[in-house]
Amino acid sequence: MKLDAKKLRLSEHDPEVFKKIKRNPIYIIVDNVLDTYNIGSIFRLADAVAVEKVYLCGGTETPPHHRIKKASINTTEWVPWEYAPTAVAAIKDLRSKIKDLQVISIEQNERSVPYDKIDYTFPVALIIGHETDGVSKEAMDVSDYIAEMPMWGINISLNVMVSLGIMLYEVAKRLP
Amino acid sequence: MKLDAKKLRLSEHDPEVFKKIKRNPIYIIVDNVLDTYNIGSIFRLADAVAVEKVYLCGGTETPPHHRIKKASINTTEWVPWEYAPTAVAAIKDLRSKIKDLQVISIEQNERSVPYDKIDYTFPVALIIGHETDGVSKEAMDVSDYIAEMPMWGINISLNVMVSLGIMLYEVAKRLP
Repeated sequence: MKLDAKKLRLSEHDPEVFKKIKRNPIYIIVDNVLDTYNIGSIFRLADAVAVEKVYLCGGTETPPHHRIKKASINTTEWVPWEYAPTAVAAIKDLRSKIKDLQVISIEQNERSVPYDKIDYTFPVALIIGHETDGVSKEAMDVSDYIAEMPMWGINISLNVMVSLGIMLYEVAKRLP
Repeated sequence: MKLDAKKLRLSEHDPEVFKKIKRNPIYIIVDNVLDTYNIGSIFRLADAVAVEKVYLCGGTETPPHHRIKKASINTTEWVPWEYAPTAVAAIKDLRSKIKDLQVISIEQNERSVPYDKIDYTFPVALIIGHETDGVSKEAMDVSDYIAEMPMWGINISLNVMVSLGIMLYEVAKRLP
């Protein structure tokens, strides 16, 4: 796996720089994503959008892990994250600290609405789920919205990191 | 690598079904993308958005290839594609057939403009480039726009398939 353009120049980085990053009021809740390449790629996205924190939940592997670190292009070194036993526990923890948190599952479901038609408010938490089973029912049950992307083809699915990337950039457009 | 939710049910598919897919006036030009997982994921995206055709250019590996097929979730079986020796050759071929084709490179460059500020017209061709070196200078030189995504973090790069996914969904929103 080659790294993309503009690779990280680690010499420019130190913990003091990391603390100064202006973070956007967006949280990512990773609900049982099992593939470590996907997990690393989620960190890479979390850095690109400078989200506040990533919650790694349930069976989701956590750093330190060489494959996560490599796929993340070392962004695991500074993107804030914590582990939660379930996505619902992560949501409860966030809601206990943050008034008016909006929680959105990325999933195809009878409750789903088009991702670009949601009235996003901030802070917002986006939940991305398991590669086969998607976001857990429990997490969807406590979500304000379930967001889906339109698809025009035959195989009605998107890769975990691609779905999250599309959602993050749609949400980031509406940042205050 | 696990497959995402709603896996392809191959029994539902036959060539007659494939021919009936209504395709959107979008082309993807793959300029020396070397990783076969990325190439397969590009096919998966090409199917999700039902693009007209994928051009695989230069050193880009082509189907049949087991890793491309697996990452594509079998979408290589019906997404139209062809090989071109260079991205510029693919653009020339397309422009010889299509009046007023808009060509857009996805790249960070001094000419780059924010991806959501472009006045997209159709048909449109999106060029995605090499994992390290990006889109070739020659292809950028003949592009109408160079589009980039804003980034707020430290590692100023996005994965090939994530960049393409964000662009495809932005473009698809403007479909006539």
